[in-house]
Amino acid sequence: MAEEFLNRIRHKDLRARVTSADRAAELIRDGMVLGMSGFTRSGEAKAVPLALAARGRAEPLKVTLMTGASLGNDLDKILAEAHVTARRIPFMSDPGLRRAINAGEVMYIDQHLSETVEQLRTCQLAPIDIAIVEAVAITETGGIVPTTSVGNSASFALLAEKVIVEINTSQSEALEGLHDIYIPSYRPTRMPIPIVAPDSRVGLPFIPVPPERIAAIVFSSKKDSSAAVDQPDGDTRAIAGHLIEFLKNEVAHSRMPHHLHPLQAGIGSIANAVLHGFIDSPFHDLTMYSEVLQDSTFDLMDAGKMVFASGSSVTLSEARAREVMARFESYKGKLLLRPQEISNHPEVVRRLGLICINTALEFDIYGNVNSTHVMGTQMMNGIGGSGDFARNAFLSVFVTKSTAKGGRISSVVPMVSHVDHTEHDVDILVTEHGLADLRGLAPRERARVVIANCAGPDWRDALTDYYERAVTRGGHTPHLLEEALSWHDRLRRTGTMAPQ
Amino acid sequence: MAEEFLNRIRHKDLRARVTSADRAAELIRDGMVLGMSGFTRSGEAKAVPLALAARGRAEPLKVTLMTGASLGNDLDKILAEAHVTARRIPFMSDPGLRRAINAGEVMYIDQHLSETVEQLRTCQLAPIDIAIVEAVAITETGGIVPTTSVGNSASFALLAEKVIVEINTSQSEALEGLHDIYIPSYRPTRMPIPIVAPDSRVGLPFIPVPPERIAAIVFSSKKDSSAAVDQPDGDTRAIAGHLIEFLKNEVAHSRMPHHLHPLQAGIGSIANAVLHGFIDSPFHDLTMYSEVLQDSTFDLMDAGKMVFASGSSVTLSEARAREVMARFESYKGKLLLRPQEISNHPEVVRRLGLICINTALEFDIYGNVNSTHVMGTQMMNGIGGSGDFARNAFLSVFVTKSTAKGGRISSVVPMVSHVDHTEHDVDILVTEHGLADLRGLAPRERARVVIANCAGPDWRDALTDYYERAVTRGGHTPHLLEEALSWHDRLRRTGTMAPQ
Repeated sequence: MAEEFLNRIRHKDLRARVTSADRAAELIRDGMVLGMSGFTRSGEAKAVPLALAARGRAEPLKVTLMTGASLGNDLDKILAEAHVTARRIPFMSDPGLRRAINAGEVMYIDQHLSETVEQLRTCQLAPIDIAIVEAVAITETGGIVPTTSVGNSASFALLAEKVIVEINTSQSEALEGLHDIYIPSYRPTRMPIPIVAPDSRVGLPFIPVPPERIAAIVFSSKKDSSAAVDQPDGDTRAIAGHLIEFLKNEVAHSRMPHHLHPLQAGIGSIANAVLHGFIDSPFHDLTMYSEVLQDSTFDLMDAGKMVFASGSSVTLSEARAREVMARFESYKGKLLLRPQEISNHPEVVRRLGLICINTALEFDIYGNVNSTHVMGTQMMNGIGGSGDFARNAFLSVFVTKSTAKGGRISSVVPMVSHVDHTEHDVDILVTEHGLADLRGLAPRERARVVIANCAGPDWRDALTDYYERAVTRGGHTPHLLEEALSWHDRLRRTGTMAPQ
Repeated sequence: MAEEFLNRIRHKDLRARVTSADRAAELIRDGMVLGMSGFTRSGEAKAVPLALAARGRAEPLKVTLMTGASLGNDLDKILAEAHVTARRIPFMSDPGLRRAINAGEVMYIDQHLSETVEQLRTCQLAPIDIAIVEAVAITETGGIVPTTSVGNSASFALLAEKVIVEINTSQSEALEGLHDIYIPSYRPTRMPIPIVAPDSRVGLPFIPVPPERIAAIVFSSKKDSSAAVDQPDGDTRAIAGHLIEFLKNEVAHSRMPHHLHPLQAGIGSIANAVLHGFIDSPFHDLTMYSEVLQDSTFDLMDAGKMVFASGSSVTLSEARAREVMARFESYKGKLLLRPQEISNHPEVVRRLGLICINTALEFDIYGNVNSTHVMGTQMMNGIGGSGDFARNAFLSVFVTKSTAKGGRISSVVPMVSHVDHTEHDVDILVTEHGLADLRGLAPRERARVVIANCAGPDWRDALTDYYERAVTRGGHTPHLLEEALSWHDRLRRTGTMAPQ
């Protein structure tokens, strides 16, 4: 082992625990519960999972795999195809694992991202046997310095019987100092979380694991996967435009200051494009209190629009990652990465008063949102942090394009086929056609504005027809139950929601 | 005015503002937004609303009516029938108003009970013109001492342009000192709410309104309505029994202490009966952090089982109210009433780690809960605080009888016709037949345990048949969309969910 690599283990006694990924993976036994680093395809352990998959192909070996959120480097696909993943908690985004989940081969527990470690801490989920955490370095006291994500790594490492640390030499040592590791105290004697602004630093810059619990240290050098973010297109630019016009009006009416409230945005192309839209907005001194920091966060900082961003991971495109990491020191005073329990904590989200922008798969005329299930049955990715944020937001915004699959699917439907966010948690809906402000409206009022402002022009008449016929039956939220899900059923049978 | 009554206005200059309910009601003009006291049929203003209804019968007069929660003394019925209530926020339970809402005559905005004043404070709802607050007394400094509920009264009074105080001489002066009025500071500079236990006292014993904003003071003497609580029956006793067995097992496995975690229970007969069940349980030194304190709270105190209860209102049966109020001083060190924003605040709920017990109208085989909409369309009461609590609970429990309407309705269905609480927010389901522990289970696993443990015996085969046919189509949450709501539609058409 080259000395420059070993120098990353500053607790010298721990250098004796350096071993190969294969040897470290031998600590894992059939039936164990593993807690792995990794959040939005950043900072996942990379070498031990591959060794584990190799073992899984050679012998019966099934585990419960918990992470922060999605893993990069195709690890969820590789582990699922090796039949190692028996249970998966709390989020994923890999097509291979998705297939296995929808086939019933992998049991997937889709959770609010702030809640997994809370349930672990109170023994309401099976305890973690081994935590596997990617690190930049180990400090003099044995503290683990995470890399490009914190996710659930801190609590996994603190709660696990044994910890395997993967020091990734491709991750810049400049990341040290970026992290703020704060763990809420046990209930019923928990104290308030002292965060009062996105830049509140309240914890340690490393995970304070007792060194004797570090069972193995492995070196790796594989890079994080790049974010596969689509560039803004006409539709996403229109969505951003509608939202920014709305926010300008809120500022004009003194309902928000010129620097708005701290922003949260979900992962993915649409949310990223919406944030991009703020570059040409009149707003300034923006802050972010979110879970994932994407290209748009750094673009806003470079444009002088954003002054601080708190997240749980940094997930960048290949080109942007190169630029950002090359001058990472210049961003360091403007960024913090926190455990996802804290980045998404209801207490902090409500206190700071966030503007939360998340992506819907579909929404209905009454403002209920489906974020997860295609046709009410097939899991897409998971609810992620959207519930943590939307429920407690100052302003809860959901965005989507009004149609999908070349216009064969309307994202605005009579009744969503699965509910992740109820009408109580949705203030604003935006598509490329416009924005529906649902605040203070009853369901019958919402239906009219959602159809008029958000639905695709080809679908408005059918939605209005449904609504008007439903109203003849009465009810606070009028529906024709025998027809409410017929658009989805028609899609299943014919490949389009449109009548033949 | 008798001197003993005037003595309740300790700020002597304010005595000049005493007037009749009719004169006070003249301050209210067509189109105004009113914020009235009242929560779970306790502590509502009683005289001015009646005067308002009389005016509404004589002249065109429509208002937006906000309260804490439901009103007693038929006020919601009287105001709706006088066509005075144009919009109603955020909760109600009156059959007359319910009819008007479902007919589309009154626009009802059904909200999480912690959120109404947050939206008012940020000008996201139309501002309150006049607050009408029932009081025990007015202090030397002009502070308003609420009666049997706090609800939204404090923020309504602080945000309104003018305040009408109704001093109710039938409400005991012993109530003074019971209230803890704490208002969160404005965002983005909000500090943590300093509550760290159910008995944390963090505010004032009165609402600190500037005396010049008190525009009128009215005397009334009408009593709170009594709670119409059904006595525990065989089914509700069975539900309580299953839950207590479960909790005993949690304690035996050291997942909870012998005094459990603070309890929250929704309003109504089932939740009240479940709490009653704790009287014969082995648990002791129980505490409560809830919104409404019902008979069961005082029964548990009298039985020496409960040491402290925090709520936003006291709603008792007629007999229990007489007993409790006669020796109210003996309870006073064991009770606090808080604004509903605080009794239900996500920050506090999550911090204290509550066991939350709420009532479902129906739930589905995957654990989604409908609390509000009969057959997905007709509003029953509203979501109330159930979302504030369930989302942030240590343990989120929903209870219901397995059937309704003499067995013609199964409360366990393939798919709920309306979602108020998603599967992410539901840990435990209980009916008289048993308990389903959904923690850590994937949807396919949940379906089996919900059907086996909770459904009525007459309905299990049909649910299993639905589930097994749905599984053949695959999916994380298998459904037959063309059939998912067919049980409800059959009920609509034939009066029963059972096939003919």
